Amino acid sequence: MAAVNALIAKRMASEHAPRIPEVTAHLVEAGGKRLRPLLTLAAARMCGYEGADHVKLAATVEFIHTATLLHDDVVDESTQRRGRPTANLLWDNQSSVLVGDYLFARSFQLMVETGSLRVLDILANASAVIAEGEVLQLTAARSLATGQDIYMKVIRGKTAALFAAATEVGGIIAAAPEDQVTALREYGDALGIAFQIVDDLLDYGGVSATLGKNTGDDFRERKMSLPVILAVAQADAEERAFWTRVIEKGDQRDGDLEHAQALMQRHGALEATRAAALAEAARARDAIAAMPASDLGDALSDLADFVVSRVA
Amino acid sequence: MAAVNALIAKRMASEHAPRIPEVTAHLVEAGGKRLRPLLTLAAARMCGYEGADHVKLAATVEFIHTATLLHDDVVDESTQRRGRPTANLLWDNQSSVLVGDYLFARSFQLMVETGSLRVLDILANASAVIAEGEVLQLTAARSLATGQDIYMKVIRGKTAALFAAATEVGGIIAAAPEDQVTALREYGDALGIAFQIVDDLLDYGGVSATLGKNTGDDFRERKMSLPVILAVAQADAEERAFWTRVIEKGDQRDGDLEHAQALMQRHGALEATRAAALAEAARARDAIAAMPASDLGDALSDLADFVVSRVA
Repeated sequence: MAAVNALIAKRMASEHAPRIPEVTAHLVEAGGKRLRPLLTLAAARMCGYEGADHVKLAATVEFIHTATLLHDDVVDESTQRRGRPTANLLWDNQSSVLVGDYLFARSFQLMVETGSLRVLDILANASAVIAEGEVLQLTAARSLATGQDIYMKVIRGKTAALFAAATEVGGIIAAAPEDQVTALREYGDALGIAFQIVDDLLDYGGVSATLGKNTGDDFRERKMSLPVILAVAQADAEERAFWTRVIEKGDQRDGDLEHAQALMQRHGALEATRAAALAEAARARDAIAAMPASDLGDALSDLADFVVSRVA
Repeated sequence: MAAVNALIAKRMASEHAPRIPEVTAHLVEAGGKRLRPLLTLAAARMCGYEGADHVKLAATVEFIHTATLLHDDVVDESTQRRGRPTANLLWDNQSSVLVGDYLFARSFQLMVETGSLRVLDILANASAVIAEGEVLQLTAARSLATGQDIYMKVIRGKTAALFAAATEVGGIIAAAPEDQVTALREYGDALGIAFQIVDDLLDYGGVSATLGKNTGDDFRERKMSLPVILAVAQADAEERAFWTRVIEKGDQRDGDLEHAQALMQRHGALEATRAAALAEAARARDAIAAMPASDLGDALSDLADFVVSRVA
């Protein structure tokens, strides 16, 4: 990871436009979990890779992630990210859009350097799925007609597509056998979905529906996340009128978030959301279990448990 | 070009997010000159290419261009593009940012399909130069310290990098000899620079400084384009105070645009800008003259003259 961080610092530089490293450093130095590059490194090593290109791919994946965060903050009009003011707030939307574009281009240069057309194909497809998922979220939000199928497409785009590509390219660069590449991809996909479902559940305070300073954002943004979808599916006429008012019309009043949580608990929507996350974590573990046993494989299996431990 | 248009229509589709083709069609169907894909097709044919991948590359180049237009309109807060309301106005900034990202990802998929790592390398580099130029423009605008060196970097990013890549990849895909690939790249670079300088000159009404409905945008946006840079370089103390007020402070009043034009004419800044455009057009013609003679070569040479004919 030290080599990945050094490469990120080097490649985010721009001789002519100092705004670029300023904005990027703000986000990159805020830390974040660096989960995606770690997945690429782990997958490559698990498959016995001894070259240096996995570092480039890990940096590629982190650049794509950072670029999407910059654009997301503009789209969501966010003011906080990783506990710090967002770049669009500190500089402006323009800088966030353009620096995001720059990082995406830099990620593209890095992956070309690996010389693997298959890696390029995987990351190009992931990029398209990510952007499509974001647009889909934009149009699917605020509509009670949004169901679980759309939700799954949105979170694949938001999160799982890059997780899956991150692990898959690790296997590819190591020239792993096809069944292992497939297993790594499935692991990343399941881990990413579990990760996002957990996030969406915690936004309503988890199964205990505990309110806190990190809850309620999705409600205020009127997102059709899984807890809402499951509660809407069971709603009677009166409850449906409530969801129409707060989600579709955006007319939200004091106590509405608490009422939403109560409805979710009444219909077991929070429990069912948790069960969905656990099922994905189990799918991730099963995928890794199909790989030859190794310490890194055990660590990835533990990571799947860790991701859902926040709602366990 | 019919094949390129068909491919663009096919690849801009998205099964799940109908907002994507809506936004893209709005821009693509508005027409525009389709100059960049034409350059790719012409370059490939000039070099005797008989395959079909040049169509993919032409569509790639147009997708990259369309993506940058969508993001530019958000950055510039524009309301009109190609004589129609912009996408950010018709839909929202979010859609423009995300659909731009989607088109960029689709362009990336298309170029991967050609299987040429060299093509990928060229277009990855062009993408980075484009984004860097846009960020540079953001920070260089509104500062009288911006000189010709920065201006050239900005317009290479804004325009010439994609023109140069468009012609270069045409040569690459045709497996043309290195000296021809170099000549094609130089042609695109010079044509792009000429094109942008002409645009910047016309924004001040050309050498005759004629006011019209298409003049004054750069002045209002306080851009450091070549006519301003050349006039500022010759400014006395009083004139410098004027430029500081209108460009750096943004305090613009009735009659300021006319005064700016008068200063440009007094110092020959409009004439010098025109001369710079003509010199670039000549460089473009010279580059093509180094290629084996052909009808397409003659057409590209004429195109260089045509681009500057608006200020001739």
